Amino acid sequence: MEKIYQGKTKDVYRLGDHQILLQFKDDVTGENGVFDPGANTVGLTIAGAGRSGLKMTTYFFEVLNRLGIPTHFVSSDIDKVQMIVKEAQVLGKGLEVICRYRAVGSFLRRYAAYCEEGQPLDSFVEVTIKDDERGDPVISEDALAMLGILTTENYQVLKSLTQKICGVVKDELAKKGLELYDIKLEFGYDKADNTLLLIDEISGGNMRVYKDGTYIPPLELEKLFLS
Amino acid sequence: MEKIYQGKTKDVYRLGDHQILLQFKDDVTGENGVFDPGANTVGLTIAGAGRSGLKMTTYFFEVLNRLGIPTHFVSSDIDKVQMIVKEAQVLGKGLEVICRYRAVGSFLRRYAAYCEEGQPLDSFVEVTIKDDERGDPVISEDALAMLGILTTENYQVLKSLTQKICGVVKDELAKKGLELYDIKLEFGYDKADNTLLLIDEISGGNMRVYKDGTYIPPLELEKLFLS
Repeated sequence: MEKIYQGKTKDVYRLGDHQILLQFKDDVTGENGVFDPGANTVGLTIAGAGRSGLKMTTYFFEVLNRLGIPTHFVSSDIDKVQMIVKEAQVLGKGLEVICRYRAVGSFLRRYAAYCEEGQPLDSFVEVTIKDDERGDPVISEDALAMLGILTTENYQVLKSLTQKICGVVKDELAKKGLELYDIKLEFGYDKADNTLLLIDEISGGNMRVYKDGTYIPPLELEKLFLS
Repeated sequence: MEKIYQGKTKDVYRLGDHQILLQFKDDVTGENGVFDPGANTVGLTIAGAGRSGLKMTTYFFEVLNRLGIPTHFVSSDIDKVQMIVKEAQVLGKGLEVICRYRAVGSFLRRYAAYCEEGQPLDSFVEVTIKDDERGDPVISEDALAMLGILTTENYQVLKSLTQKICGVVKDELAKKGLELYDIKLEFGYDKADNTLLLIDEISGGNMRVYKDGTYIPPLELEKLFLS
């Protein structure tokens, strides 16, 4: 089994036949030992974080697959903390698509002149470039088109698919009295047939979830949500 | 004459009857004594910079007014280094609209993973918030709409007006063998009748212009262009 990439929170192996094995790790992103889903560095290691993320991810991908939303998910093995997925080609050199329901995090840091912390946002979508060196800059629909990363037509598909997926996640969380503030997704093209797929994971590490106004960290979120 | 604002490069006085007097100064934006049209701080004072900027601005506004493009320009007095303009309400708390023909400056700093320095861009438009404290963040069409700063319809009007104006400036410069790489504009609503107007100035301090691949600083630009 060929290891093709060592990520911040997962290691990636090629299985052949356009399939990939993701080995979830207990490392989570953050800075100075504090978890931050928007951070670019591994901030801390939390025992059980990998398994917890995989359980959440499996839950959401299974819901999305049942709804006919294309994802890379094939199967998962919770005991081995592994997920098998379809091989996909990332957009450009890797993009993150963020959907926001409340103004927190980098949105608030940028636009505090025009919004209050926690102000509702109507499933606002923005795209950032995965580029640690340059702090994952936001990139507009027009810039994505001009730089040949994504056509305007594909941007609109990506935006509407993002809002649909995040709406499902938000509704699932709401069933347990949990509120989704923001979430980041990744997409790729299926190497086998080139369709646009949701890739990566959907877990506490990729979203900010609150309960009665208090932020719920990833492991606690998984316990509250899947109990 | 009531002084209503002391800007980085101009002082602003109210004249009454929806008119404003702009007193151009010899301060230019930059950092550590080096001129940078994208900078937020006054970097240096250059004798004659105010008069030079006013001469360029007067030239361009007169060209634009002849073409029927709405601007705030009423008249200027080069000797007194003053310009009289229509009173306007800025968009939001002040936005800058950038039009780019080549990848330099902050665009290059953000997107260097996807472009080369000086790469041609097809009159690419982006909007930044005037917010020194937060480093003038870029803001998307969707975010402008969501935060109630500019409707999607008005964004499209602003974008197309920006491309039209900058095309005029680019063509004028090209007549003298000068190439416009990027330029930033400001817009406002006419206090008298609420029409969208080009405001502020159009001079070397708001654009990057090159001749045969070499950057031309503002005062030299004015001499080359208006000679």
